[in-house]
Amino acid sequence: MIALLTDFGTRDGFVGAMKGVILSINPGVQIVDISHEVEPFNILEGALLLKAHYRYFPKGTVFVAVVDPGVGSERKPVALKVGEYFFVGPDNGVFDLVVRELEGPPSAVVLENEKYQLPRVNNTFHGRDIFAPAAAYISKGTPLEEFGRRIDYELKLSFPEVKREENTLRGEIIHFDRFGNAVTNIPCGSYSHGEFRGENLKVVPFFQAGESEKLNLICGSFGLMELFTPMGNAREKFGLRLGEEVKVWLS
Amino acid sequence: MIALLTDFGTRDGFVGAMKGVILSINPGVQIVDISHEVEPFNILEGALLLKAHYRYFPKGTVFVAVVDPGVGSERKPVALKVGEYFFVGPDNGVFDLVVRELEGPPSAVVLENEKYQLPRVNNTFHGRDIFAPAAAYISKGTPLEEFGRRIDYELKLSFPEVKREENTLRGEIIHFDRFGNAVTNIPCGSYSHGEFRGENLKVVPFFQAGESEKLNLICGSFGLMELFTPMGNAREKFGLRLGEEVKVWLS
Amino acid sequence: MIALLTDFGTRDGFVGAMKGVILSINPGVQIVDISHEVEPFNILEGALLLKAHYRYFPKGTVFVAVVDPGVGSERKPVALKVGEYFFVGPDNGVFDLVVRELEGPPSAVVLENEKYQLPRVNNTFHGRDIFAPAAAYISKGTPLEEFGRRIDYELKLSFPEVKREENTLRGEIIHFDRFGNAVTNIPCGSYSHGEFRGENLKVVPFFQAGESEKLNLICGSFGLMELFTPMGNAREKFGLRLGEEVKVWLS
Repeated sequence: MIALLTDFGTRDGFVGAMKGVILSINPGVQIVDISHEVEPFNILEGALLLKAHYRYFPKGTVFVAVVDPGVGSERKPVALKVGEYFFVGPDNGVFDLVVRELEGPPSAVVLENEKYQLPRVNNTFHGRDIFAPAAAYISKGTPLEEFGRRIDYELKLSFPEVKREENTLRGEIIHFDRFGNAVTNIPCGSYSHGEFRGENLKVVPFFQAGESEKLNLICGSFGLMELFTPMGNAREKFGLRLGEEVKVWLS
Repeated sequence: MIALLTDFGTRDGFVGAMKGVILSINPGVQIVDISHEVEPFNILEGALLLKAHYRYFPKGTVFVAVVDPGVGSERKPVALKVGEYFFVGPDNGVFDLVVRELEGPPSAVVLENEKYQLPRVNNTFHGRDIFAPAAAYISKGTPLEEFGRRIDYELKLSFPEVKREENTLRGEIIHFDRFGNAVTNIPCGSYSHGEFRGENLKVVPFFQAGESEKLNLICGSFGLMELFTPMGNAREKFGLRLGEEVKVWLS
Repeated sequence: MIALLTDFGTRDGFVGAMKGVILSINPGVQIVDISHEVEPFNILEGALLLKAHYRYFPKGTVFVAVVDPGVGSERKPVALKVGEYFFVGPDNGVFDLVVRELEGPPSAVVLENEKYQLPRVNNTFHGRDIFAPAAAYISKGTPLEEFGRRIDYELKLSFPEVKREENTLRGEIIHFDRFGNAVTNIPCGSYSHGEFRGENLKVVPFFQAGESEKLNLICGSFGLMELFTPMGNAREKFGLRLGEEVKVWLS
């Protein structure tokens, strides 16, 4: 099985072309879309979505993650094995959050064997010409060593760290979801309450338990604490911005 | 086969995670997206789309419909068998239009057997943790009784009814489609003409037969009468709003 | 395998209904989305996306292209065989760019045999009622002659031609992609430089080689030259418009 995550959008047919390539090589493989609406060039957002969702896929899934502003430049196309999963894409940090979470260094190779690329590689679209064929061959069982030389995977992404003090954690807003909920970098946990813009926040177990017309905290779908307002779009209603600080107290 | 309808959007990867869960349980199953762009929390819209499209799917299809503002609260996660189809989601009315259309009460159970849920259920995301696994197990043939106790399905949705007088029907706009066509609650039928905002409307057999720069009536893709303007966006051009009254004369 | 290209959007479930129909007829077939966000009624854009991507799909793929403002009118529903591919949709020009590219006239038939249509054809939705079943039966091996009488395929689309002078080509902007890159009708080739709005343009081999805060030219993902600005949205930044002239010098 192959899962796709890109910033390509769905208007231009780029993802369709990738699937055509994959199914030309491995006709029977299942392909699932994670998202193609990562904000253009936003590697951190891609990394975040990948980390949030990969664990729900079957072992052996090949993830193709293409948020790739440097396509065609000196950044390297790579394939990794991390735990029981495979990851294919540029080595620009998009896999960092997954790699950091799992123990031990990943197996990593550079995708340089032209045998596993399309005959003509366009330097604007490695998703179609390099990454899609690599994923298809990996899903057919081609060993990673076949694709190119081994490299040490280097972390590249600067991800905002949560600051721990005595009984508090301080994090920030790192993503807004479709509903306008503000996802923070604070992992789910047992918190008594929170603080945002100097005001107290209730921590609630489900959305409808939240105080209406106010911001509340909840353990959200990414496994991270989220700010929300019941039946409303918190981002718009309160003018929330990326990077704003959120604080929680351990209970 | 499993068909998905949600208000999750496609940006955040939520639907991808659901598919990962489904394919972890039933690797061979076909998954089809109906829509993930139901307006957030708009149960009526979800119900409408489900009713419009379910009949085009193969018998035995399992529909997962998650428009679920009350996720985690006292509303119940359920599975229904209605005719030859299965439906999985919250019991908040999203299945009402399908249930009303088919004869006899549906078989309904509460999804409470933890054996058929993910090990950790997050109360913001039953789509992934309860509904996706339930659909996957149903698609593998697990009988409904396995999931939990039987309940009587209660209708909950207040759907605007069409008013029948002698030779007229009075309905209203209940949905706008992508093209700006205004879908009403008036079922397709033989109508001589219509009325909207005090003006006469032609009923035409195909879009290009409509009077240009005007509103016209047509039997649309939902099996309901629609207001449209040829090659244009009627909603924007005429400032149409949900709930506006539309009248038709039987021919 | 069946690939879908429409202007239906993904909100209303129209594409889901088409897939339900296809899988009712040919349960095992793979279905891939190319795009459903072609601008409503924009046949040229549909033709362009189809031409850009079809070659990346396996031989034998059945493409369904529904950008169909004349649905239900005298325009004809057709199926073509062009090279090793099949195409199903309205004969309004959406297949012209593919047909022009391949040698020899295509085999074309009118889809008029009701045996291969849904029992009730709605004249607003041939995608579901005529094109989806036709594609499903073709993917099962039903020969084209079964669907209806043969016709000569006539080109209908007026596609802006590139003007060749001595050592220059003059074309225009014909599409904007998701990133705001401006796709021209000038095919990829060896060009020394370009001109736009009276200013010189660099031709670069990959995006990051472009001069920042300026427009640059590159051989893009459609196999056509594109205007772009590194890490930015060229369309918005420079107020680019469809139809604006772009000139390149052969090197």
